[in-house]
Amino acid sequence: MAVLDQTEKHPPALLAPVLPDLPVVRTEVDTVLAGFLARKAQAAPGPEMAPLFTALSTLLDGGKRLRAHLCITGWYAGGGSGERELVVRVAAALELFQAFALVHDDVMDGSDLRRGRPTAHHALAAAYVDGGGRPRRAAAHGVAAGVLLGDLALTLSDELLLAGPGDEAVRRIRPLLETMRSRLVYGQYLDLLSTGRPCDDVEAALRIARYKTASYTVEWPLRIGAALAGAGDDVQDTCGEFAMPLGEAFQLRDDLLGVFGDPSRTGKPVGDDIREGKATVLMALALRLASAAGRRLLNGSVGNRDLTDVDVQRVRDVIEESGAGRRVERMITDRHDAALAVLGRAPFPAPATEALREIAGIATVRQS
Amino acid sequence: MAVLDQTEKHPPALLAPVLPDLPVVRTEVDTVLAGFLARKAQAAPGPEMAPLFTALSTLLDGGKRLRAHLCITGWYAGGGSGERELVVRVAAALELFQAFALVHDDVMDGSDLRRGRPTAHHALAAAYVDGGGRPRRAAAHGVAAGVLLGDLALTLSDELLLAGPGDEAVRRIRPLLETMRSRLVYGQYLDLLSTGRPCDDVEAALRIARYKTASYTVEWPLRIGAALAGAGDDVQDTCGEFAMPLGEAFQLRDDLLGVFGDPSRTGKPVGDDIREGKATVLMALALRLASAAGRRLLNGSVGNRDLTDVDVQRVRDVIEESGAGRRVERMITDRHDAALAVLGRAPFPAPATEALREIAGIATVRQS
Repeated sequence: MAVLDQTEKHPPALLAPVLPDLPVVRTEVDTVLAGFLARKAQAAPGPEMAPLFTALSTLLDGGKRLRAHLCITGWYAGGGSGERELVVRVAAALELFQAFALVHDDVMDGSDLRRGRPTAHHALAAAYVDGGGRPRRAAAHGVAAGVLLGDLALTLSDELLLAGPGDEAVRRIRPLLETMRSRLVYGQYLDLLSTGRPCDDVEAALRIARYKTASYTVEWPLRIGAALAGAGDDVQDTCGEFAMPLGEAFQLRDDLLGVFGDPSRTGKPVGDDIREGKATVLMALALRLASAAGRRLLNGSVGNRDLTDVDVQRVRDVIEESGAGRRVERMITDRHDAALAVLGRAPFPAPATEALREIAGIATVRQS
Repeated sequence: MAVLDQTEKHPPALLAPVLPDLPVVRTEVDTVLAGFLARKAQAAPGPEMAPLFTALSTLLDGGKRLRAHLCITGWYAGGGSGERELVVRVAAALELFQAFALVHDDVMDGSDLRRGRPTAHHALAAAYVDGGGRPRRAAAHGVAAGVLLGDLALTLSDELLLAGPGDEAVRRIRPLLETMRSRLVYGQYLDLLSTGRPCDDVEAALRIARYKTASYTVEWPLRIGAALAGAGDDVQDTCGEFAMPLGEAFQLRDDLLGVFGDPSRTGKPVGDDIREGKATVLMALALRLASAAGRRLLNGSVGNRDLTDVDVQRVRDVIEESGAGRRVERMITDRHDAALAVLGRAPFPAPATEALREIAGIATVRQS
């Protein structure tokens, strides 16, 4: 009996589900996305719609599939097993949601590059001119078409949820999806309001990070996966406790990459955050820790779109010398450790815990 | 027996539901919207979100509630009766969807006025400066915040659907909602692609009108209401047959109002469509019917954002003289009549048929 009890608590490895690793997730999710988008492009009213679908596919191509991976892992964490068709479809829908968020984000920030390629609104502007549109209208057309492409991605994300069996389960995750959406909008608005106003308030910057990134990058994909598996409150709560520090760490890494990252890996120019004047934790700490002269330079430069590359380098030097980068690295480590500590007592099947441990590493140590 | 049969086919007036008229619909829908938005504003992360909710409420204030009215009438047409709490909530969600569409439309067109007030992105730019934002960033902030406000309205529209009982019925209308959404995006993209390129292709202009306006203004609100009542295919098909000509007529009236309307009633400046170069049926007909000199003037002026009011008046004169306006009036009448002919044989309860007849009048004869 004792042996049996033991087995029930810790099922032998052979009975535990084998979780798909990131390459497998990518293949499965991309197969769903490709098939779905091909059907939708086919059903669209005419060949004029092609640039929208091309821009969307190009954007999706470059993604890391982090949210999809988290969603599927959340499903296993919540006790999911067997056929994963439904959770893969939901994971793919989350990638379309992410595409929506990125396209609108790039329109709002006026960004030129994303994942190493022209942003969607730039690509749409180019397609417009190629299709005979007047060049002097191209930029405005690109922005407008970018707004529409984001709207389309969001709509397709919703449609994909319904594009197969699983009504009951999809119904269960809807409220989580809505919460994810409104939190993202609020976070983006907080971000907009603070952009261009350098400020040394670290807590305020962390709050923005929580809303605009942490919850929709880590927490909701994970919880949505778990909810899909029918997980109870204890699993859901633990998902949240694990996700929040990890999501913050993810954004903190993004802040560092935005200033010190290698553009050939991040796919984004290095000066964007500085020229836009993003109110990041990194910038708040730099303003707090820099010398009086350094602070003056930051206040006079950050948020100025006309900075030259030399100006940007000066800002980077001040941030570097202030020690803010090291401080942010420490914050990332602390949050990574906090997330792992939650995993140590998480009521998840062992393979899910192991997968989340790996994801925590990827999300915080990444270079792109 | 014969008498009984007769009664079943034409139930006596006392048993037929009394349909709410437009003022009643407005009161019921607005009560739902006000309560819901107040709860959402309360649950938002902080007072910083206030400008989003203020801009949304201001925009909603000015609406005609045509879509809500159609949705509720569709519900009665589909056999709905008794407590209309659910259909009123769905109707209110459609008004939020409409707000999403308008906010993004105004961002895309760079419009200054909507419903007689500054467009949402202008209002958000003003709120940004009032809140201490840098004036030179205001315009870009307004556009970005407008993108977000549209996203928020769409999200709230979805949330409202779930904000009460009726899961099963909401599940039934979801596919219709998704179709409505993607068709709107496609229509808007067709519109974008054709804007600024005056063209005498009437069929192409009608196709744009069908996608960008007709289906989401008339067809889907009506069908969604009918589906909510559990209507069968015959009712659904008849809704579509009634809605398509009426929706086209609605857009044709919009085209006329955009050029010849009274700005104090339409709430929009009269030259917008001309300066933007919208590929309307009116413009296509004018290009086809005008004299050679008139056509030259149209080709040289339409789609030029820098036209003076005098230039705009010249364009109006050419359109007027071409007889295109009268032709469009006739097209509206034909479509209005076609819609009424469908009503004549529609399998709807008599009060619903009567209400739809009235709506058809309002939608085609309106001055705003």
